[in-house]
Amino acid sequence: MRLSHSLIPTLKEVPAEAQIASHRLMLRAGLVRQTAAGIYAWLPAGLRVLNNIANIVREEQNAAGAQEVLMPTIQPASLWQESGRYEDYGKEMLRIRDRHERDLLYGPTNEEMITDLYRQSVKSYKELPQIAYHIQWKFRDEVRPRFGVMRGREFLMKDGYSFDIDYASAVISYRRMMLAYMRTFQRLGVKAIPMVADTGPIGGDLSHEFIILAPTGESQVFFDAAFEDVDYSAANFDIREPADLDRFFGVMTDNYAATDEKHDLDAWGKVAEDRRREGRGIEVGHIFYFGTKYSAAMNFAVAGPDGQKIHPEMGSYGIGVSRMVGALIEASHDEAGIIWPDSAAPFKAAILNLKQGDATTDAICEDLYGKLGQSALYDDRAERAGVKFADADLMGHPWQIIIGPRGAAAGLVELKRRATGEREELSLDAALARIGVTAS
Amino acid sequence: MRLSHSLIPTLKEVPAEAQIASHRLMLRAGLVRQTAAGIYAWLPAGLRVLNNIANIVREEQNAAGAQEVLMPTIQPASLWQESGRYEDYGKEMLRIRDRHERDLLYGPTNEEMITDLYRQSVKSYKELPQIAYHIQWKFRDEVRPRFGVMRGREFLMKDGYSFDIDYASAVISYRRMMLAYMRTFQRLGVKAIPMVADTGPIGGDLSHEFIILAPTGESQVFFDAAFEDVDYSAANFDIREPADLDRFFGVMTDNYAATDEKHDLDAWGKVAEDRRREGRGIEVGHIFYFGTKYSAAMNFAVAGPDGQKIHPEMGSYGIGVSRMVGALIEASHDEAGIIWPDSAAPFKAAILNLKQGDATTDAICEDLYGKLGQSALYDDRAERAGVKFADADLMGHPWQIIIGPRGAAAGLVELKRRATGEREELSLDAALARIGVTAS
Repeated sequence: MRLSHSLIPTLKEVPAEAQIASHRLMLRAGLVRQTAAGIYAWLPAGLRVLNNIANIVREEQNAAGAQEVLMPTIQPASLWQESGRYEDYGKEMLRIRDRHERDLLYGPTNEEMITDLYRQSVKSYKELPQIAYHIQWKFRDEVRPRFGVMRGREFLMKDGYSFDIDYASAVISYRRMMLAYMRTFQRLGVKAIPMVADTGPIGGDLSHEFIILAPTGESQVFFDAAFEDVDYSAANFDIREPADLDRFFGVMTDNYAATDEKHDLDAWGKVAEDRRREGRGIEVGHIFYFGTKYSAAMNFAVAGPDGQKIHPEMGSYGIGVSRMVGALIEASHDEAGIIWPDSAAPFKAAILNLKQGDATTDAICEDLYGKLGQSALYDDRAERAGVKFADADLMGHPWQIIIGPRGAAAGLVELKRRATGEREELSLDAALARIGVTAS
Repeated sequence: MRLSHSLIPTLKEVPAEAQIASHRLMLRAGLVRQTAAGIYAWLPAGLRVLNNIANIVREEQNAAGAQEVLMPTIQPASLWQESGRYEDYGKEMLRIRDRHERDLLYGPTNEEMITDLYRQSVKSYKELPQIAYHIQWKFRDEVRPRFGVMRGREFLMKDGYSFDIDYASAVISYRRMMLAYMRTFQRLGVKAIPMVADTGPIGGDLSHEFIILAPTGESQVFFDAAFEDVDYSAANFDIREPADLDRFFGVMTDNYAATDEKHDLDAWGKVAEDRRREGRGIEVGHIFYFGTKYSAAMNFAVAGPDGQKIHPEMGSYGIGVSRMVGALIEASHDEAGIIWPDSAAPFKAAILNLKQGDATTDAICEDLYGKLGQSALYDDRAERAGVKFADADLMGHPWQIIIGPRGAAAGLVELKRRATGEREELSLDAALARIGVTAS
């Protein structure tokens, strides 16, 4: 994109309403704008990050054998009356009445609807196991929305649901999703620690929250270094293989991890001192096995091998996709701005033309922009070099390609890596090769 | 995907509630399920079609220089009070009150919000022209939702908005979007005819509806064969070149096209007899130039070259993305089911294993499925051949690869092209090559 004609409105001033780094930086870098309390419009650069994250989530869900669906945002109240949650949910549920006086709601989650869809269609144990997920906007009418997209009212979430014929099979689905989550975080370039969470009346150990490490996180976490050492990729675990899932789940549960609320000093003392890690973290996901809670309440049963009726065992698996945008920034920024991991960055590189209107620098920049295409942001504004440097640091592109008149005359550009600050002067083709684009 | 473990619930019976072909076929082929009046959940096969269409729309918008944003579904009433449309809109607007008694609404369209976003950020004529679009769910509380996704309440729409500094520039933006639309339809394999539509108090000729030809369409259309002859692709028109846009717009406006409501027998009589075309059609898009209607009402002004304040000239550009799924089916189906154009098909090919459980056919099918991956639907159900044939025709995959025990023994598969019914026996590698997959 050409920055001069884009809706990427960077701000020099720090917005007064923003209390945390990610909120400030998302506003300053022109990623989002608030349109009502806790509701945001995603501008071009922000939307690219959101889509990059959603696509990584999607690829890992698909690789785990989950199938993508898309349920609507508006749900009938009747579905929630079936499960008994319509009254329970309280004021966080946005309740709506349509022109025919029918009660609707803006879905905060989808257990009821997915159970209804399966109840209509799946009749035999032979069709299970299945996992279905969707990436859809949700609404929770928070009493006090704040922290930007970290605690918004309209937010994008991936929620998935597993259906299995018995507990043993449900455990495999649960572990498979857990591995898919760890892979997702690994690809996003963040450290994530799974924490055992409350299961309520269900019991057991099949409920985990995923905490992303960020110095500005909301809670203190304590964990064994083991979580940092694991390679979660397909090279190490075959997600289709129950034996690999077993081994994976062993690592996840045999090693100490707790938030300050549940920190157990005795257990912590048993962790070798050089393996103790501490930090702050942000919750970005939650997975939960809940058995037949919804299948029984909503009378979803399939025929078993002997013709008996079986209520499938279910689990749910959520990742806050829009929240993740904020969490990535909390995990990776400095005084100058955002430092995007390559996998989530809105643009792979920014092209900074230090002398817009100069025939030589313009020609080199146009050539570069032609080769990089949609993966580059071309700062073609009639601005001073200092403004362009500051905005590129603020926006956090992994690479900056800096074209000034002196270097241009010698056929050289400057390449800056945002994460390290390293700069080097090299030829155009060498610069393109360095950032992973083959010169044509 | 493996059909045995997928949420693709095909139906043999014709659903009683469906009055038109596309609605019947979308339910029967397991693409969608209704979750409330006029509200649908998109199951895996349906979502793939929806995404394929959305991606083609997106690519053509981007190629035309439009930038993608994503505005939220829920909007504050205050924005609509500024433009005066809050009272005007009537009962089709889904009005919502949140826990703090603030008035919100589920956006039926986004002129106000995009104007507000530009008003906050764009201050100079130097930053224009710009076009921004988003692909987002909308809600219109239809009094009587019907015809499935063709007239649903929650629907997916691409709406775009152009901002120009003067009328001459606005005309270029309008023509550019019009060409992007014709390209989109061409890639989707349907014939679309642009029809001059009412401009109301704005006047002029810059309002067009796009009608897709389908035998079951809602209105009768009359048009010159010229519209069928044009190649709208980049090979024929450079969308960046105003001269090319001129030539394109000439073809669009110099040739006769009208719906029965506006049919002009005198003008029709002047069309050469062998160039007269008639058919039925479905409206799937509408583009509209409306000048400073919103920029003036909402006080969005930029500084002009001489420092004077200028209200930008605006236009809006809509395509019904979810409606298009139904329209494609209306345009392309037969007694047996859907006939997807390759560009929109949920799966490129279905693999029909005629003897599930047979070692040879199973091995060939697994091999094929491994090579085709996510682009194939593997019918691995323990069903009779007749059921698999009928479901594949119903679902409308462009290609069917049929593996029976006799052919398998000889290393042969049968390849069927859904659109023509042609079948031929050939080797596995030749079949893959025919459908455009290089055997590894």
